Amino acid sequence: MPDTTLITNCTLLTETSSPLIANGFLQIAGSLISDLGDMSRMPSAEGAAIIDADRKLLMPGLINGHNHCAMTLFRGLADDLELTAWLHDHIFPAEAAHVNPEMVYWCAKLAAAEMLLSGTTTVADGYFHADAVARACRDTGLRAVVGHGIIDFPAPGVPDPARNVETVSGFIDDWAGRDPLITPAVFAHSAYTCLPATLIKAKNLADENEIRFFIHLAESRQEAGMLIDPRGTSPVRHLKALGLLDSNTVCVHSVWLDDEDLDILAATGAHVVTCPQSNLKLASGTARVARMLGRGIRVGLGTDGCASNNSLDMFREMDMLAKIQKLQTLDATALPARQALRCATTGNAALLGLPGLGRLAVGSPADLLLLNLKAPHLRPFYNQDLLVYAGKGSDVHTVIVDGRIVVEDRKLLAFDLEETFSEVDKIALSLRKKQHSLQPL
Amino acid sequence: MPDTTLITNCTLLTETSSPLIANGFLQIAGSLISDLGDMSRMPSAEGAAIIDADRKLLMPGLINGHNHCAMTLFRGLADDLELTAWLHDHIFPAEAAHVNPEMVYWCAKLAAAEMLLSGTTTVADGYFHADAVARACRDTGLRAVVGHGIIDFPAPGVPDPARNVETVSGFIDDWAGRDPLITPAVFAHSAYTCLPATLIKAKNLADENEIRFFIHLAESRQEAGMLIDPRGTSPVRHLKALGLLDSNTVCVHSVWLDDEDLDILAATGAHVVTCPQSNLKLASGTARVARMLGRGIRVGLGTDGCASNNSLDMFREMDMLAKIQKLQTLDATALPARQALRCATTGNAALLGLPGLGRLAVGSPADLLLLNLKAPHLRPFYNQDLLVYAGKGSDVHTVIVDGRIVVEDRKLLAFDLEETFSEVDKIALSLRKKQHSLQPL
Repeated sequence: MPDTTLITNCTLLTETSSPLIANGFLQIAGSLISDLGDMSRMPSAEGAAIIDADRKLLMPGLINGHNHCAMTLFRGLADDLELTAWLHDHIFPAEAAHVNPEMVYWCAKLAAAEMLLSGTTTVADGYFHADAVARACRDTGLRAVVGHGIIDFPAPGVPDPARNVETVSGFIDDWAGRDPLITPAVFAHSAYTCLPATLIKAKNLADENEIRFFIHLAESRQEAGMLIDPRGTSPVRHLKALGLLDSNTVCVHSVWLDDEDLDILAATGAHVVTCPQSNLKLASGTARVARMLGRGIRVGLGTDGCASNNSLDMFREMDMLAKIQKLQTLDATALPARQALRCATTGNAALLGLPGLGRLAVGSPADLLLLNLKAPHLRPFYNQDLLVYAGKGSDVHTVIVDGRIVVEDRKLLAFDLEETFSEVDKIALSLRKKQHSLQPL
Repeated sequence: MPDTTLITNCTLLTETSSPLIANGFLQIAGSLISDLGDMSRMPSAEGAAIIDADRKLLMPGLINGHNHCAMTLFRGLADDLELTAWLHDHIFPAEAAHVNPEMVYWCAKLAAAEMLLSGTTTVADGYFHADAVARACRDTGLRAVVGHGIIDFPAPGVPDPARNVETVSGFIDDWAGRDPLITPAVFAHSAYTCLPATLIKAKNLADENEIRFFIHLAESRQEAGMLIDPRGTSPVRHLKALGLLDSNTVCVHSVWLDDEDLDILAATGAHVVTCPQSNLKLASGTARVARMLGRGIRVGLGTDGCASNNSLDMFREMDMLAKIQKLQTLDATALPARQALRCATTGNAALLGLPGLGRLAVGSPADLLLLNLKAPHLRPFYNQDLLVYAGKGSDVHTVIVDGRIVVEDRKLLAFDLEETFSEVDKIALSLRKKQHSLQPL
């Protein structure tokens, strides 16, 4: 492949709210976007690889702000259960029995396949055996912010909780600067599973390495009553008292926030990633996203792990975000489609510390999608809002990450999907044998 | 094509809650299912057309309980607006200017294409120029219950409201017994657009012809205050007082029902079709579906017209139904996945008066789907609940309606999709020219 690629004859959406360019081009040099605009001013194609888009829509790749990639193994294992029963009777036992580096590698690869094929070009993950997650993403061509989990209990790969922060430090040292697509991060599970001292050590580790600090926060109504050694009357106030809230902190879920909590997030510059489908499926509630945005809090969007979703399709997630906010506010104008697109692109990029992503602009990394618009559900196509309310991951035709074509005509190019299916099937079979309630297949 | 078709080597889901048959077959004779079961007892294949399912999932076709097919033209025309502004400033003017038999025929055909390609084999429609809807469905191979609209205002094709019931009577006479796939019906728009006398005439017309009576009911909180000549303090009580509620009546939406309204529906045997995505997008609220089912009310599922959704994918709708009921009840066990599947199959079939549909059984019409399970988002596949929480219309590979293959390898066989695109594009272009707020494309 030549160093320059020219995508021609596309409908071009450069950024969430920009007007569409009806007949555009985009030029990639190496891993970066080097030019774009109307076809009338297209540069010379000499020496460039040409991709004739044939009127497909060219748009920024989507960013999934929160996932536990390896949990594809548990997708559909236990649905329609109350959160505590789901975690304690199903997910935790299954994790204890089945999570190891092999499992994490192959199941994260399966997640990466699903994400790439549905238009996600960057994921923020949080799990254990994070080295295996990082290798899986690298091997599929997906860009990733890989958070290593911290919890004050014995965990996969971290049998001694006293060494949990140290283990993450080792992971960070291993991956810092190793691959342009992989950014390590710190993922403290929550304030109901980590001691205050652990949270502080974890945050310091993130700050010293200038990488992001993630934490599940205020997911359920019960969480305020479950905090370990609480320093405040809400999860947000607890974190504030510990000095953990600033613009390097990403709070995930944040469903149960009162007005004072919102004031604190706005004042500290801490970010929120909302996971609307997971919050619905586990009956956690609905985050006050429209209100947060109105207060100037930066909000991104994620799918959560697919055991509580059960899909990693960010198109589906954007649709849900826009719709559920209308219900919560009983206002049909709340969180319009373009705001949902923004959360999944530039919003996520900014809060993950990857500010060049989420838009198509000269000098930005070439992370982008070609979408097939010749499908009944995208006709007529009056404007980009339809991507949120009718678009599907399956509309994705071509995916480019960091200038490299990783999906073409819905085929994954960087790795062998059949091998991944086969390895995951083996693990799922061993899990299934232990779960007599499961149907044979 | 021989009169007998044998589908082999499939994963077989015969009915919502049935255990999967890991390696099954299904035999079709003419338009009906003539045998099915485990491959070990497959009948002779001699003289039969063979479809090797190659481990695809064979399941009943989905039924869309409420749609306004022709409104594909207005998909994405005006999103994120309050209901009254949406209707009066955008949809009604666009309908007044653009709805005619040509438009209805082509735009309903576009809807049929989208529905077939996403696994819907039967739709219940309600619109004007219903003859064009019926022709469009017939020409695409989709099974349809086609309701002709009744409203006490001048309407497309019915300039004189005094003749509205008479017009529908003519439509019924035209289509009664004309095509095995098309069943006419009466669709009274609502109790805030129809006089009591009109509603009674419309219901009598339905009863006399032994066809269904549909009505939008209690969609918004405001509706109780908008009833024409109210005979009760709620839309449900108004209809009860008029004698319109019985097992031949299908109430659509039914978001704002109090406990007494639920008692009335349960006692009269009237049915409900819920449209969760439309109700969210227009900020109408959430129907109390879990409660209705608990009271023994039959509930089906529909997409509503795609201008307020904006998708006709019943997989997406099932997912939303199951999730939104968990939020409404704050109970993660509410409306489990299989109940959502039931609403979209046997539930809809029963309330539409098509009781053989929605399940795979000997003697039932052969309306069925083959789904590709070799996709990352459907791996592992522990059981059928995953169809609700991760399945997508785009997983549909083959669709058979009434024994006839209408989709094969995601290609529509019964009609020319390109011609439909081209005709709808022409109409959309003329609409776009009148809407200066729209972006050029």
